[in-house]
Amino acid sequence: MDIKVPRGTQDILPSDSGKWQIVEELIRETCSLFQYKEIRTPIFEHTELFTRSVGDTTDIVQKEMYTFQDRGDRSLTLRPEGTASTVRAYVEHKMFGYADQPVKLYYMGPMFRYERQQAGRYRQFVQFGIEAIGSADPAIDAEVISLAMSVYQKAGLKNLKLVINSLGDTESRVAHKEALVNHFEPHIKEFCTDCQNRLQKNPLRILDCKVDRNNPLMASAPSLADFLNDESATYFEKVKEYLTILNIPFVVDPNLVRGLDYYNHTAFEIMSTAEGLGAITTLAGGGRYNGLVEELGGPESPGIGFAMSIERLLLALEAEDNNWATLSMLDVYVISMGEAAKKKAVELTNVFRQNNITSEMDYLDRKIKTQMKSADRMKAKFVLIIGDDELEKESVMLKNLSNGEQQLIPLNKLVEQVKNSITAWVEEEK
Amino acid sequence: MDIKVPRGTQDILPSDSGKWQIVEELIRETCSLFQYKEIRTPIFEHTELFTRSVGDTTDIVQKEMYTFQDRGDRSLTLRPEGTASTVRAYVEHKMFGYADQPVKLYYMGPMFRYERQQAGRYRQFVQFGIEAIGSADPAIDAEVISLAMSVYQKAGLKNLKLVINSLGDTESRVAHKEALVNHFEPHIKEFCTDCQNRLQKNPLRILDCKVDRNNPLMASAPSLADFLNDESATYFEKVKEYLTILNIPFVVDPNLVRGLDYYNHTAFEIMSTAEGLGAITTLAGGGRYNGLVEELGGPESPGIGFAMSIERLLLALEAEDNNWATLSMLDVYVISMGEAAKKKAVELTNVFRQNNITSEMDYLDRKIKTQMKSADRMKAKFVLIIGDDELEKESVMLKNLSNGEQQLIPLNKLVEQVKNSITAWVEEEK
Repeated sequence: MDIKVPRGTQDILPSDSGKWQIVEELIRETCSLFQYKEIRTPIFEHTELFTRSVGDTTDIVQKEMYTFQDRGDRSLTLRPEGTASTVRAYVEHKMFGYADQPVKLYYMGPMFRYERQQAGRYRQFVQFGIEAIGSADPAIDAEVISLAMSVYQKAGLKNLKLVINSLGDTESRVAHKEALVNHFEPHIKEFCTDCQNRLQKNPLRILDCKVDRNNPLMASAPSLADFLNDESATYFEKVKEYLTILNIPFVVDPNLVRGLDYYNHTAFEIMSTAEGLGAITTLAGGGRYNGLVEELGGPESPGIGFAMSIERLLLALEAEDNNWATLSMLDVYVISMGEAAKKKAVELTNVFRQNNITSEMDYLDRKIKTQMKSADRMKAKFVLIIGDDELEKESVMLKNLSNGEQQLIPLNKLVEQVKNSITAWVEEEK
Repeated sequence: MDIKVPRGTQDILPSDSGKWQIVEELIRETCSLFQYKEIRTPIFEHTELFTRSVGDTTDIVQKEMYTFQDRGDRSLTLRPEGTASTVRAYVEHKMFGYADQPVKLYYMGPMFRYERQQAGRYRQFVQFGIEAIGSADPAIDAEVISLAMSVYQKAGLKNLKLVINSLGDTESRVAHKEALVNHFEPHIKEFCTDCQNRLQKNPLRILDCKVDRNNPLMASAPSLADFLNDESATYFEKVKEYLTILNIPFVVDPNLVRGLDYYNHTAFEIMSTAEGLGAITTLAGGGRYNGLVEELGGPESPGIGFAMSIERLLLALEAEDNNWATLSMLDVYVISMGEAAKKKAVELTNVFRQNNITSEMDYLDRKIKTQMKSADRMKAKFVLIIGDDELEKESVMLKNLSNGEQQLIPLNKLVEQVKNSITAWVEEEK
């Protein structure tokens, strides 16, 4: 009998979960500063949502979705990304009618893609993303990018690179699409079957192909930049201007397309340039998706957002050798010996917790010496020793594990004196 | 085109997500006080994990699991509860070898059961649970119960009822099982097919049946309490003693069994007795599961834990009419008119956020009056007005929305003066 964690997924153990909590807390605070509010959508959605929005010619929809029938014979899919669900909820709950526009939302939670296993890629991974829906102002494109950059900077990342591009509006895209078809069609037999299928349906996707990436026709393909109409070009200029106002350096990469169908105008990726991060350097990606809300049954509502993987953020932090604070998180370890003292230990441990003092005690009836070792390993600030002697005198011994000092504390002043001692301990450690 | 949220699931909208965040934060803090550390396991597991641990005669396994084949033809199941996954991880990562025992873990996240829809029940719901594995000390049973009670009390619930029972050890359970078979067997034809199947496999489950709950044989069934051997009875007495030391009132209900196979010794439920909560009053349930770790391939490691639904905690709070703090969460709304002022607005909004001042601006190029209305609706503490006049003077106007007072602030003292104003605002509102 040997049941393991499912392939491609991982457990986050108690020794690591603290990092996740710190990063997630930092994200929540940043969203609050920028006035994005959390939305939580279900882990699964009707499959049609993703074929419709992510696009049925994309790798995600064709190869990577966890799709299944429920007991009511509905086709459901574990969400592979967060934008489709958020926009579905935006339409379903008629958020386009909210008094304050744009509606600024964030989400954070697990996503699922059945991908080939490799370092830093999991089939279940956690994404944080934001969506600002209801404004076509280039200033909000800059805000969205700025929020992502803020999160990384606050987390302590230093080696960041922002790459942006414009995918243009529909008119520009149609013109570019035509040029792409003309470019690839004469040689399409050299390409993989997927690309052959993409040629008429969605030739832009060819540029994204992992199989044919080295075909010379890729590099010589017509660039969208040359097909942007005036409106799209002006929009892009303004985005760049606002990024400059925000002091955010960027690089324009005309080959940046994104692996999802719904993007237009601004597209961006944030990479880590830290050494030792391995092959995967993209930390976050996003873009504008005017048209997606209509596609999902809502009124015309321009939107923009991004998503970032928490796993990769943590990997990038590690690659940059960031230190995680490992301060003592345990105030008092309560040590006792014998049945009467144990009852007192249960009582006092509880009193501490009720007074916001973190505390722990022994649940294995171990020797005092072994309990003391536990307290050391858990990096307790103090141990409280309850012996027969102490019980008789209605007092307990508090020992500072940093300097070894001991003091006898009467039980009726316990909380007050322990709190004072903790404050003094924290002062001394500074 | 009309894709809705899947049946039995819900979106948590920005207007409600704040409550979830408050409760979850309170839970994390409580776990830290009690020294439980977070573990995160995947959303799905190998199906066998649940048939093995939850038990293949339970309703959960027989009727309520979301089971599917992945693209590699593995049978996976969306986790219906958290204990099985936690214990699987405990065994897989050899936590029984950790220096500090018991290992004290908590989890918080979505669980999935395909249940009939009714108020307060969702097919995806969020559970918080803890597990203490590696100690058979009755004091830790009391600690586990005490943590659950603490969470509810801190959240503000007043109408709580703790019900406990002992399911005894294996010897006691075997004796009781025999008595149950003898009791039901002569009349088993009166019972539903499920109960007929349960008779030999797991007669205790019959007491849990929703179909036959009113059959008089249920009430007259032999009580486990009468079959507890000395060891089990002594253990139960000690648990009660420790609960008394912790000032936690309880009621013993000999009919309390739990809907999962792996429990023994201590079982408990916490109910809300608040009026207006409807039919579902159980907020949390848990118990001891000595033997489960071995069942899943680990060495003998006694364990105990509980799980609570966050949805029900929120419903209970609502039923008790608890007030949620709705303080202003927006410090400054930046108002501008015209292109030059807008650029300044983008810049200053960003400056505020970088200095931990929550701020918002307009992204729809609306009139000043309309921007002012937005600021009001968002309950901003202040608006900052940038006009041509102000730009020329290198200063901006800060208006307190509580009392209408205005002050002209030079741009080079902006952050400092706004911070002071916010501090004064908070003081005044107290």
